[in-house]
Amino acid sequence: MSTSSDPSVSIENDYFWMAKALRLAEKGRYTTSPNPNVGCIIVDSNNQKVGEGYHLQAGSPHAEVHALRQAGDKARGATAYVTLEPCSHFGRTPPCAQALINADIARVVVAMTDPNPKVSGQGIAMLQNAGIEVTSDVMAAQAAALNAGFIKRMVTGKPWVSVKLAISLDGKIALSNGQSQWITGPHARRDVQRYRALSCAVMTGSGTALADDPSLLVRPAQAAFSSYPLDKVRQPVRVVLDRDKTLPDDLQLFTDGFATWRIVSDKHEHSAGDLPFVTNEKRFNLSDVLQTLATKNINRVFVEAGPGLAGELLEAGEVDELIIYQAPKILGNNARSMVKLPDFASLDQVVNLTLHQQSQVGEDLKLVFHVATTRKN
Amino acid sequence: MSTSSDPSVSIENDYFWMAKALRLAEKGRYTTSPNPNVGCIIVDSNNQKVGEGYHLQAGSPHAEVHALRQAGDKARGATAYVTLEPCSHFGRTPPCAQALINADIARVVVAMTDPNPKVSGQGIAMLQNAGIEVTSDVMAAQAAALNAGFIKRMVTGKPWVSVKLAISLDGKIALSNGQSQWITGPHARRDVQRYRALSCAVMTGSGTALADDPSLLVRPAQAAFSSYPLDKVRQPVRVVLDRDKTLPDDLQLFTDGFATWRIVSDKHEHSAGDLPFVTNEKRFNLSDVLQTLATKNINRVFVEAGPGLAGELLEAGEVDELIIYQAPKILGNNARSMVKLPDFASLDQVVNLTLHQQSQVGEDLKLVFHVATTRKN
Repeated sequence: MSTSSDPSVSIENDYFWMAKALRLAEKGRYTTSPNPNVGCIIVDSNNQKVGEGYHLQAGSPHAEVHALRQAGDKARGATAYVTLEPCSHFGRTPPCAQALINADIARVVVAMTDPNPKVSGQGIAMLQNAGIEVTSDVMAAQAAALNAGFIKRMVTGKPWVSVKLAISLDGKIALSNGQSQWITGPHARRDVQRYRALSCAVMTGSGTALADDPSLLVRPAQAAFSSYPLDKVRQPVRVVLDRDKTLPDDLQLFTDGFATWRIVSDKHEHSAGDLPFVTNEKRFNLSDVLQTLATKNINRVFVEAGPGLAGELLEAGEVDELIIYQAPKILGNNARSMVKLPDFASLDQVVNLTLHQQSQVGEDLKLVFHVATTRKN
Repeated sequence: MSTSSDPSVSIENDYFWMAKALRLAEKGRYTTSPNPNVGCIIVDSNNQKVGEGYHLQAGSPHAEVHALRQAGDKARGATAYVTLEPCSHFGRTPPCAQALINADIARVVVAMTDPNPKVSGQGIAMLQNAGIEVTSDVMAAQAAALNAGFIKRMVTGKPWVSVKLAISLDGKIALSNGQSQWITGPHARRDVQRYRALSCAVMTGSGTALADDPSLLVRPAQAAFSSYPLDKVRQPVRVVLDRDKTLPDDLQLFTDGFATWRIVSDKHEHSAGDLPFVTNEKRFNLSDVLQTLATKNINRVFVEAGPGLAGELLEAGEVDELIIYQAPKILGNNARSMVKLPDFASLDQVVNLTLHQQSQVGEDLKLVFHVATTRKN
């Protein structure tokens, strides 16, 4: 019997199960890095779910393995929905494509192929060579959004960079005297916790580190993801750009026992935890810094910094996403502007964005922009 | 028979007809000033509409008169839905309350009472004294929003002041060299035409008048209200603050044949069309200016000005509504900030707003804020 003649094989049915598999995959979103989030659902020929699973942590079983274990013998002749192409190689776990073959799965529906260009398509080929019917690119955009960081690292060798700024309606981040606590409300500040938890690294500049002495850690009590098992949330590594190593050693970043990487100029002595980089005209080459972070398995960088670093990242074309919390306040022309940029001579030269999401967060607006790709180098 | 026992008398039914009367009233929104927008629907005891009307222009018949004419004899025993309390005095037309009594209307449903404190309630009393059942405050908030300008002038002796600003995400209105055309897109600029048409006056400062030589007129070809009979749209009077009478006479504002009022210091000679005011420390008392505009039957002032006048109006607590078109662009710290305000020492002192509406207009966000009343003097 060909599974294609089964009435349960329809685009609508595939979307139904893949949407559920994506929701499962999301359950790993604060814990799987540097691995991607993956969900898997196994459905028998009566269109009944017989197994499900998701990847929780690097080194622990992949989603397919959990789902196959749950399905047991019922996997025979069934359809597996997987949000990412099953792996074909031995990593810390055996290849999932082989596990699906061994279980006599009849059909595999894949949301997207492996983003790693070196192995993309190999898992699907392994399945097809074993006589399994494969349908791919089902809800590919949704699957890609879930793993934006992992995918960007695999494809470009750099992490996904989100820059967060809390501003007034007139684009100010502080009064002229520096007062900035708080421009936005408690709901916006709680929402930030979620991004810290999602990210492998939180990056800041020496100015912010010195002025605010922030921890940049996820504060579970403030977290806006209370349905998540908080003991599973891992803390992001803090990355602080401290070119001249002028930051005092007693900052929270250096004393609270959680990991901090200090990016320093190679012109200075460096010690354990420091990452030295060439500096040129007093600036780091931010592309180099990001590439190094990617080699250290950083998928997503969340930038909580001042106008200087935010501007340098935008100028360098290294920002993927701008997350703005905009308070309904006006601070006036003397207050501090959100982003330092060169003095543009023409409106053609300014930074162009694309509005991606908008919502209200308490009394503030949350606006998520993608940076227009034309700016990218 | 008491109309109250009629099954058609229910809150839901009253809302149904009043909502329709409000839509009718809106048809006069570009033409009735200085009069309010009013709609009227007459419904017989079978809950069938027998007449409708709206006020189109000052001096022409009121909404009730149109509706009663259409209803003829069917008005007897019917219910009239009116979006504003029927007038009880002879103005340019006879009192509508008397017309409803004469037509033997059995019940009148009123959205809101007359905002003029001197006559408020008199129309309802006249109806009740004639034995007519009156229900009031049905969709009062919606009715008030429709006539925000008229109501504010009646209640406070000042017009409703809307300040429009076209800004970047970082709150800039121009590059440091002054270039500002165009930060926002064509959809936003078309939307502005609608506000000009809605307003009795468009106000600007001498800086903007000199830099841009704007007409500030409604450009029907660009208008975003194409379903409206364009020949009925009247042009707003332009009000330009030109303290020292330094603006050249050949600006469009002074030569295109449409009305412009020039607000000048009483220290200077003034000619026809000039409105002289006392100036104090180089500034006008904007409260005085607005009061004078109200005495000249200006219900709504739409301010299209630079950071200086926008800031002075906000500081003086004279802004009711801020209409922001926010483009997805970043202009950088050297560009010109949207509002000039004093250097605040504490975040408690900044201008607080309440987000009232948000929508997307082309690629730009449109944000309408009301100014927090705590700031008002």
